[in-house]
Amino acid sequence: MTQPTHTRSWVTSANGHTDFPLQNLPLGVFSINGSAPRSGVAIGDSILDLHAAIDAFEGEARRAVEATAGGQLNAFFELGRGPRVALRERLLELLVEGSPLQTREGQVLHRAADCQMHVPARINDYTDFYVGIEHAQNVGKLFRPDNPLLPNYKYVPIGYHGRASTIRASGADVRRPKGQTLPAGQTEPTFGPCARLDYELELGIWIGQGNAMGDSIAIGDAAEHIAGFCLLNDWSARDIQAWEYQPLGPFLSKSFITTISPWVVTAEALEPFRKAQPARPEGDPQPLPYLLDKRDQAAGALDIELEVLLTTAAMREQNVPAHRLALSNSLHMYWTVAQLVAHHSVNGCQLQAGDLFGSGTLSGPEVGQFGSLLEMTEGGKKVIELPSGEVRKFLEDGDEIILRARCNREGFASIGFGECRGTVVAAR
Amino acid sequence: MTQPTHTRSWVTSANGHTDFPLQNLPLGVFSINGSAPRSGVAIGDSILDLHAAIDAFEGEARRAVEATAGGQLNAFFELGRGPRVALRERLLELLVEGSPLQTREGQVLHRAADCQMHVPARINDYTDFYVGIEHAQNVGKLFRPDNPLLPNYKYVPIGYHGRASTIRASGADVRRPKGQTLPAGQTEPTFGPCARLDYELELGIWIGQGNAMGDSIAIGDAAEHIAGFCLLNDWSARDIQAWEYQPLGPFLSKSFITTISPWVVTAEALEPFRKAQPARPEGDPQPLPYLLDKRDQAAGALDIELEVLLTTAAMREQNVPAHRLALSNSLHMYWTVAQLVAHHSVNGCQLQAGDLFGSGTLSGPEVGQFGSLLEMTEGGKKVIELPSGEVRKFLEDGDEIILRARCNREGFASIGFGECRGTVVAAR
Repeated sequence: MTQPTHTRSWVTSANGHTDFPLQNLPLGVFSINGSAPRSGVAIGDSILDLHAAIDAFEGEARRAVEATAGGQLNAFFELGRGPRVALRERLLELLVEGSPLQTREGQVLHRAADCQMHVPARINDYTDFYVGIEHAQNVGKLFRPDNPLLPNYKYVPIGYHGRASTIRASGADVRRPKGQTLPAGQTEPTFGPCARLDYELELGIWIGQGNAMGDSIAIGDAAEHIAGFCLLNDWSARDIQAWEYQPLGPFLSKSFITTISPWVVTAEALEPFRKAQPARPEGDPQPLPYLLDKRDQAAGALDIELEVLLTTAAMREQNVPAHRLALSNSLHMYWTVAQLVAHHSVNGCQLQAGDLFGSGTLSGPEVGQFGSLLEMTEGGKKVIELPSGEVRKFLEDGDEIILRARCNREGFASIGFGECRGTVVAAR
Repeated sequence: MTQPTHTRSWVTSANGHTDFPLQNLPLGVFSINGSAPRSGVAIGDSILDLHAAIDAFEGEARRAVEATAGGQLNAFFELGRGPRVALRERLLELLVEGSPLQTREGQVLHRAADCQMHVPARINDYTDFYVGIEHAQNVGKLFRPDNPLLPNYKYVPIGYHGRASTIRASGADVRRPKGQTLPAGQTEPTFGPCARLDYELELGIWIGQGNAMGDSIAIGDAAEHIAGFCLLNDWSARDIQAWEYQPLGPFLSKSFITTISPWVVTAEALEPFRKAQPARPEGDPQPLPYLLDKRDQAAGALDIELEVLLTTAAMREQNVPAHRLALSNSLHMYWTVAQLVAHHSVNGCQLQAGDLFGSGTLSGPEVGQFGSLLEMTEGGKKVIELPSGEVRKFLEDGDEIILRARCNREGFASIGFGECRGTVVAAR
């Protein structure tokens, strides 16, 4: 699929610097002034209302638009690649300069700033992986300096089930959780508000067509089962996590909220930004056959620049610009998204349209690339100095975390993901 | 609520030895010959079709029946205790000897043997706890003979998120999963069918009214948020589990299938079988205040006898009766179900009607009370001899596991849960 940089849209804001040029066309679910949630496509600073424009679609593209009805994209995800591509091609025709749709701008286009965005699908199951290898190493070093990675890490795409009911769209308040924690040097826990509240920078992956229970999705077919991508903040209560997580993994330390960016960036929009899976270091094992596919090895990785920004209440009051905490990249995933799908279903586990995967924290190896405060402060030992003169080890009430993502490649239009924001509010 | 033993039903099979006498009245979702799933009540060897009998209900009870429409009990669960009790009281009137409903038997009653049972609600999230303390000790001993319980066990009701998409009603085939395992003495994994397939005997807990994200359910209110109970078999691939579970807990070793008994036994039916939480052994810590409630301590535990039976293909061929592997009791739960609800929501995690909890394996301390083969065979070291002359360490293809549960108390009608069955079929 070619994506010429110079194609212009009649939606003029799509032609300048924007996350949502004509080459992106992510889908989402929005409402205006409390209306029922409905589906739309982000274009510049606007949203195309798919159902207001439905008579402009026919055939496969029409089928795709119809499947976005009801304020949830599950049925659209379930349709798979064919109708999604047909919809994309028709959207390009409709939004390019000279399209007759421009005459109906007032009926079909909304200012994004006037809209409320929603979680775009009913999430049946949410799985959080742990495939950011630099993060796994950074965290592992805190506990096992000489041997940071566990023996299974380079064989098993490590993941665990997360809580689906508390996934919220960008902008939802992050209520500081309460829970049990073990004070340093004590043997009995105390109860109270989390004192080590953290974020985690992750990529979110939306599942398209699922599989029947008992079947597996072959690695060669796995990419076809992915509907799109978003940003995901896996908010984490480090003190609660440290006390609760043995032997069955994190639970209440994560389940209070997970925030996602609301736009579903499609596999087609990301096509120009695919790369060969970064070579495994000398001595790393080959993936087992069920995780190995030539095409996936050649073009299964994603080159997405990922950014974490912080503002505090004081910074916002003083108009201090948001402070960048990290700049990282999705190339730090040790496994491709196709490998995640193949692994998840290899035991016959049923995936369903609208399932969400998190990648795990996507840190780089260097200071300035760490996707969590746990890594930046070395478990709370170091302090982060902010431009306002404030310092942080973990998040305080009023702090806002903003995740952003952008894809850049010479000769191609740059596309972005929109934001994934959340502000910490005091415990009840 | 009194439950006189001697009240008789016009459904005569409800008056003999049955899991479903007039004092039980569990709800479920069934279909006949491929009809749309609909709600019913188990009575003796029959099912009362709630919608066929809907004109016999009015007021709160009618509201309850209406909320069971659509083949899923979520809306009914959400209504909470009041309508559920009203429905129960009206059902008692309708099913007792002398009720005019008997004249409509042909329209409102189906033979259970002719019906197909379904998972009774849309399960939004499934959480598996680990509160069977004897199981935790038995398993812990295999790894840490001197110190089987981890330091958090007696403070934190340990739990983790499970996979909702692969929960199936009793009778579904259990396809042997494939996955990575680490052969003894090796450092590199191999891939293939699970060789250590196991069951786990658990109680399932259906959540009724939920809570808003950010709110917590107080321990004193928690029992009101429980809609009912079932049996749950947490099928487990021990070899896959051993290799994958560090550091984030079990994943593919559990997510291939979870089986539940389809009837929702209500809190009201179980009322006579509530007990004081078994005294914590001398020296055990008091629960933290958010887990402590006088009424819950006095009557929060459940006295349910739990049974595991096995038949092999050869046993069924030779008409050898099912072999009892274990007889245990839900009193081995270290935490009450109210404590599970209070803990799960204490961080603001949103619970929703239709969420399912598993208790964790409910073993007793003695041989003959173990709720898994892992415990019975001491991790595959011992052999179990079957009446057919066969032996088992773990499950083989064709083996069927049957879970049963029964409540007995002098002066009260004995009630049961129905069965939770599953037969192992060969890996694909």
